[in-house]
Amino acid sequence: MSKKTEQTSISELGEFGLIDRITKDIKVKNSSTVKGVGDDAAILDFKEKQVVVSSDLLTEGVHFNLMYAPLKHLGYKAVVVNLSDIYAMNAEPKQITVSIAISSKFSVEAIEELYSGIHLACETYGVDLVGGDTTSSLTGLTISITVLGEVKKDDAILRSGAKPNDLLCVTGDLGGAYMGLQLLERENEVFKVNPDLQPQLAGYDYILERQLKPEARKDIVEAFRKMEIKPTSMIDISDGLSSEIKHLCKNSNVGCNLFEEKIPMDEQTKAMAEELNINPLVAALNGGEDYELLFTISLDDYEKIKNDPDFTIIGHITEASEGANLVTAAGSAIPLEAQGWNHGK
Amino acid sequence: MSKKTEQTSISELGEFGLIDRITKDIKVKNSSTVKGVGDDAAILDFKEKQVVVSSDLLTEGVHFNLMYAPLKHLGYKAVVVNLSDIYAMNAEPKQITVSIAISSKFSVEAIEELYSGIHLACETYGVDLVGGDTTSSLTGLTISITVLGEVKKDDAILRSGAKPNDLLCVTGDLGGAYMGLQLLERENEVFKVNPDLQPQLAGYDYILERQLKPEARKDIVEAFRKMEIKPTSMIDISDGLSSEIKHLCKNSNVGCNLFEEKIPMDEQTKAMAEELNINPLVAALNGGEDYELLFTISLDDYEKIKNDPDFTIIGHITEASEGANLVTAAGSAIPLEAQGWNHGK
Repeated sequence: MSKKTEQTSISELGEFGLIDRITKDIKVKNSSTVKGVGDDAAILDFKEKQVVVSSDLLTEGVHFNLMYAPLKHLGYKAVVVNLSDIYAMNAEPKQITVSIAISSKFSVEAIEELYSGIHLACETYGVDLVGGDTTSSLTGLTISITVLGEVKKDDAILRSGAKPNDLLCVTGDLGGAYMGLQLLERENEVFKVNPDLQPQLAGYDYILERQLKPEARKDIVEAFRKMEIKPTSMIDISDGLSSEIKHLCKNSNVGCNLFEEKIPMDEQTKAMAEELNINPLVAALNGGEDYELLFTISLDDYEKIKNDPDFTIIGHITEASEGANLVTAAGSAIPLEAQGWNHGK
Repeated sequence: MSKKTEQTSISELGEFGLIDRITKDIKVKNSSTVKGVGDDAAILDFKEKQVVVSSDLLTEGVHFNLMYAPLKHLGYKAVVVNLSDIYAMNAEPKQITVSIAISSKFSVEAIEELYSGIHLACETYGVDLVGGDTTSSLTGLTISITVLGEVKKDDAILRSGAKPNDLLCVTGDLGGAYMGLQLLERENEVFKVNPDLQPQLAGYDYILERQLKPEARKDIVEAFRKMEIKPTSMIDISDGLSSEIKHLCKNSNVGCNLFEEKIPMDEQTKAMAEELNINPLVAALNGGEDYELLFTISLDDYEKIKNDPDFTIIGHITEASEGANLVTAAGSAIPLEAQGWNHGK
């Protein structure tokens, strides 16, 4: 929506014209893609590998706000959040299908902008766009993506393999995407009151990027292979650390102690939290959208990861009867609360 | 929405509670489903088979109207229209992922009703529900389904294999779903004016079922195997015969002659068309949603299908230079017009 150049209405082009436009430059990258877009279905061949599949759906006004999410970034992010689920299985994403519903407020150029982000993510992560659907909606934009990946038999890592005494680890840092969102929402409110004021975003590039253009941890899955580590369980952090830890514990039938002081947070995350008078711990525990990986490893693997800056050990697994607890800086243990998606929030 | 019993708001249950509710009774049917719902991604194993994948997205007010589409039927139909794409590849559907976005107007019971139709379709067609997403939307209901199927290497049938002199064939009859929709829309208009009037639907059960609860032609793909026929090209009829023929011709780089008089139509389709003063040919050519299969076979296979009531030969393939034509009852050839989806219709 940022370009003010000539806009083509989608009805001028029609469904098939639009599909031609957004698929014309696709070049297949993976040998597992036998036949991509253009038939009733794509044909894939994974040979002896197993297939992993995951789907996500994003709706305007709930998952994104076009007031501050550029369409290209939105397309990129929509793909990345799906790929993250595949990496969380210790698998390699290979194909995606993208279905969108668009209202008449979107021009062909706007949809091309969205797809330029989708194509860029495909390029960056080595994934083929092999199908999908474009259709109309009465209001707003909906994006639904399904991703297929491959994994060697027995290499997939589930949420259910954590064992007492395993170490609880996380990649990168947490809470940044949430604080980036708070900043964007604040500036959007200011803009609504006075459109002439320039947004105050300087010095917060990292948390803005965490919110607007997150990356999935392809590098971590590759690192595990090189380091010859196979986590006992893994999940990606989309809803917030607290919620994901509870999923791991429930699926593995274990408890855990999470140490507040160990949770990795970037300086910008903390600074923004202070500026907005938010407890940064809340951002890390319940903010979500960080797309880092949460995993458990056997104590035997401690030596392999202890000095690696990509990983932080944030706790350990206990018996189920002990529950999932946050151990505060003061040393008291309080039960972790999960905050999933709340309807109508 | 039909049951007036107690309604539970989705916020009472929360995202994870809702997911538990709609997935609790799932039993995996296919050996290719290694791990279904409940992790970051499902794990599938197709062994030496190839994988086919297709995605569709349906939005309220565009693809369905909850004034007359019961939620259970809608769930059933949403699955079936996806399966149809897999059969059109000569493949067997095995798994689906279902993503829905729902506004706060939907109760837990309404969503359970929708999923009861989804589960019924899975049961009927031997498909496993292995994943998806449930999320909120600002308005209305959106359903996005991805289906995965399997096919032996080299058994997939594309849109691109039709050759001059091949016979153009169709299964079942056409135009019924469209005329069913016209009937429902008429009765809905009457209802809006006078809610006390009973809808006049008697005698039109077939076309209503074609619209509200269509089936995908699983039986045809099985029949091909038994009859040892491999069509040279195939596509399912979702947008209308005219549009699908044009796809086949374009992808195969051929032309065709379609004979108006050969197009199979049910008596109810014709009767409703007469009652509503619609040319039934328009319903068959441009109506869509019939989910029959359109395919071409070599002349050598003529003997095998000529007496089979499931199939109707409606024309033949010509050189590309001759174009795709409708040959009228009077014998004149007129170019076929494709009508795809029109934005904002």
